[in-house]
Amino acid sequence: MGLGELLLSLAIVWLAAKLAGEAMERVGQTAVLGELLAGVLIGPRVLGLVHESEILHALAEIGVVILLFEIGLESDLGELLRAGLQSTVVAFIGVACPFALGYGLAIWWGKPTLVAIFIGATLTATSVGITARVLSDLGRLRETASRVILGAAVLDDILGLVILAVVTGLAQTGVFSLTTAALILAKALIFLVVAVALGIRFAPTLLRWVGTMRARGSLIVYAVLFCVLLAALSERIGLAAIIGAFAAGLVLARTEPRAHIEERLKPVADLFVPVFFVTVGMKVDPGMLNPFGDGALSFTLALTAVAVLGKLAAGLGVYQRGVGRWRVGVGMIPRGEVGLIFAGIGLANRVIEQELYSALVTMVLVSTFIVPPWLKVLYRGSRGTD
Amino acid sequence: MGLGELLLSLAIVWLAAKLAGEAMERVGQTAVLGELLAGVLIGPRVLGLVHESEILHALAEIGVVILLFEIGLESDLGELLRAGLQSTVVAFIGVACPFALGYGLAIWWGKPTLVAIFIGATLTATSVGITARVLSDLGRLRETASRVILGAAVLDDILGLVILAVVTGLAQTGVFSLTTAALILAKALIFLVVAVALGIRFAPTLLRWVGTMRARGSLIVYAVLFCVLLAALSERIGLAAIIGAFAAGLVLARTEPRAHIEERLKPVADLFVPVFFVTVGMKVDPGMLNPFGDGALSFTLALTAVAVLGKLAAGLGVYQRGVGRWRVGVGMIPRGEVGLIFAGIGLANRVIEQELYSALVTMVLVSTFIVPPWLKVLYRGSRGTD
Repeated sequence: MGLGELLLSLAIVWLAAKLAGEAMERVGQTAVLGELLAGVLIGPRVLGLVHESEILHALAEIGVVILLFEIGLESDLGELLRAGLQSTVVAFIGVACPFALGYGLAIWWGKPTLVAIFIGATLTATSVGITARVLSDLGRLRETASRVILGAAVLDDILGLVILAVVTGLAQTGVFSLTTAALILAKALIFLVVAVALGIRFAPTLLRWVGTMRARGSLIVYAVLFCVLLAALSERIGLAAIIGAFAAGLVLARTEPRAHIEERLKPVADLFVPVFFVTVGMKVDPGMLNPFGDGALSFTLALTAVAVLGKLAAGLGVYQRGVGRWRVGVGMIPRGEVGLIFAGIGLANRVIEQELYSALVTMVLVSTFIVPPWLKVLYRGSRGTD
Repeated sequence: MGLGELLLSLAIVWLAAKLAGEAMERVGQTAVLGELLAGVLIGPRVLGLVHESEILHALAEIGVVILLFEIGLESDLGELLRAGLQSTVVAFIGVACPFALGYGLAIWWGKPTLVAIFIGATLTATSVGITARVLSDLGRLRETASRVILGAAVLDDILGLVILAVVTGLAQTGVFSLTTAALILAKALIFLVVAVALGIRFAPTLLRWVGTMRARGSLIVYAVLFCVLLAALSERIGLAAIIGAFAAGLVLARTEPRAHIEERLKPVADLFVPVFFVTVGMKVDPGMLNPFGDGALSFTLALTAVAVLGKLAAGLGVYQRGVGRWRVGVGMIPRGEVGLIFAGIGLANRVIEQELYSALVTMVLVSTFIVPPWLKVLYRGSRGTD
């Protein structure tokens, strides 16, 4: 891709994102819904103004890393930990219920066991990016319900990795490996604990050193460098990069120059984050959403209903007073890119066929697109605290 | 390139850039020299910590576009135009002298005419990026000498394109085309005049409209969108993208929210611009700098001397009082990536052989690396005005 083409693609992505985001805000929706729809519109399968490319994909990945870093910076580790047990309960229900419902539905529909396991696994994912962005758009990140959702979504991401490893192994070898599962879970938890503990211990010293630097822009570069380093480490040990970025944000949130970092990160996030949501939208093939073909409509509808109900059930795990069950339940619904990865692996390993893949993708998209307006309705009437 | 690898590369690039930049500032040099050296060190030919990739290349290109946009934002179109005649004189001497000296040296050394023309053409380039960054590091962008250098460097970029087109045609077909040259020059000047005139006419209205937006981060995204759009257009019509970015900066510099845009662009530039200078350094192959091989040392030395002298002569074109001739002359010396492109085309078209290519690359690198410390010395004693 030449430089001119890349710059033009970026210009189109930004223009579409801002126009659609603004339009959505004007009609009382969140900007992120506009960015997703803008992506569908300009994507290769509708208007074809922008094509997917390795570079756009990389910029989008940097965008979601920056988003989770920013969300981490705005979060309070102490409060996340205090909501920890609550988040854990929500996360486990939010994995168990969708899996059981998806598996049951598939078996009842006459699918083979392995296929049913894959369908169940795809339903367990939670996309922390969508919900975090919606809560941020609504100015609700600092509320208790938001902390429960964020904590549960991060745990879900880790559990999702465990399930992904187990299911991939099952698809490729037919063997269910509990050792693999335990190993991944242990690695992920150890990484998080060690990274955050070391970070909190040494970050203040490092930042004082950065404070003595004369070169321009040292604070923002070292802050993003720390984020990118933890994200890369996180990816290297098999976790999602966004988990490392979130941990980096949590660490720097407890340091003295936090407000300065947040202020300087804002324009960077303003530029990069929309690229991520627009490219998520670009992956949508409206042709694949045709549920009327081959009589698959009823299964797609049932699957989507189960996907929504399974995560709503997670809200029932809320035992703390003052934390809205509906808000937590709805906040867990979006599958986003995580669900697409699951479905893609199933397709690549020929566990599921094209028609079932289309049904899963439809489920992922519906679950992703309904959440911004739904949360907006749930938060109507009360005022944001951020 | 996987996400983890990309993030790790970025982390290494930023760490090396900041550490080396800081070290250079501590010993009284400019940060940009540190970033260039950091690139040589971590590049594939020395430590091999980071490898060139399409994505890093794209981020670097975005970096230099952002840099010229920022330089444009900090410039005053009126003062650039008032220095216009002075800049034009400097630019023409800075093209004619190096070409004549390079051509003469090559003929005297017994090279064929076509090769001599190529050598002369490679010597005409000026890298506006290096000098603009040094002046910015030194806090001197708003001085008259800086305006003369910036104006002349932009004109040199346009003249360079004309020469590049003529010389490429000559290399490929053996025919010298004056029509092509005139066409490119006309296109470039018309683009600049029309873009800036339309921009100044309509930008205030568009920015007032952006000011009414509710979505977060509208100002920075629309400002960068405008920059990227002009850069893409500029690239599309055959001009360098940085010329369009500089024009976009000049336009927005005259609008009311200029200070807000500058403030928000700063962290974005802090992150992206070093990526450009580090990757310029990464392209250096120290093995290629071995001028002792094949007895080419004397020619390489003569070529480099001629390259420096030819651009220093441009300083003699300064007739305005209070504009330092040495500062202007030295500011025109760096060839940067433009010189490398010329040499590369010569090599690709087999006009020049590998040994001559090495000599040209050495000349480009020496001319690029000596300027930051040299300008630093020239500005010692007087205080910056920015």
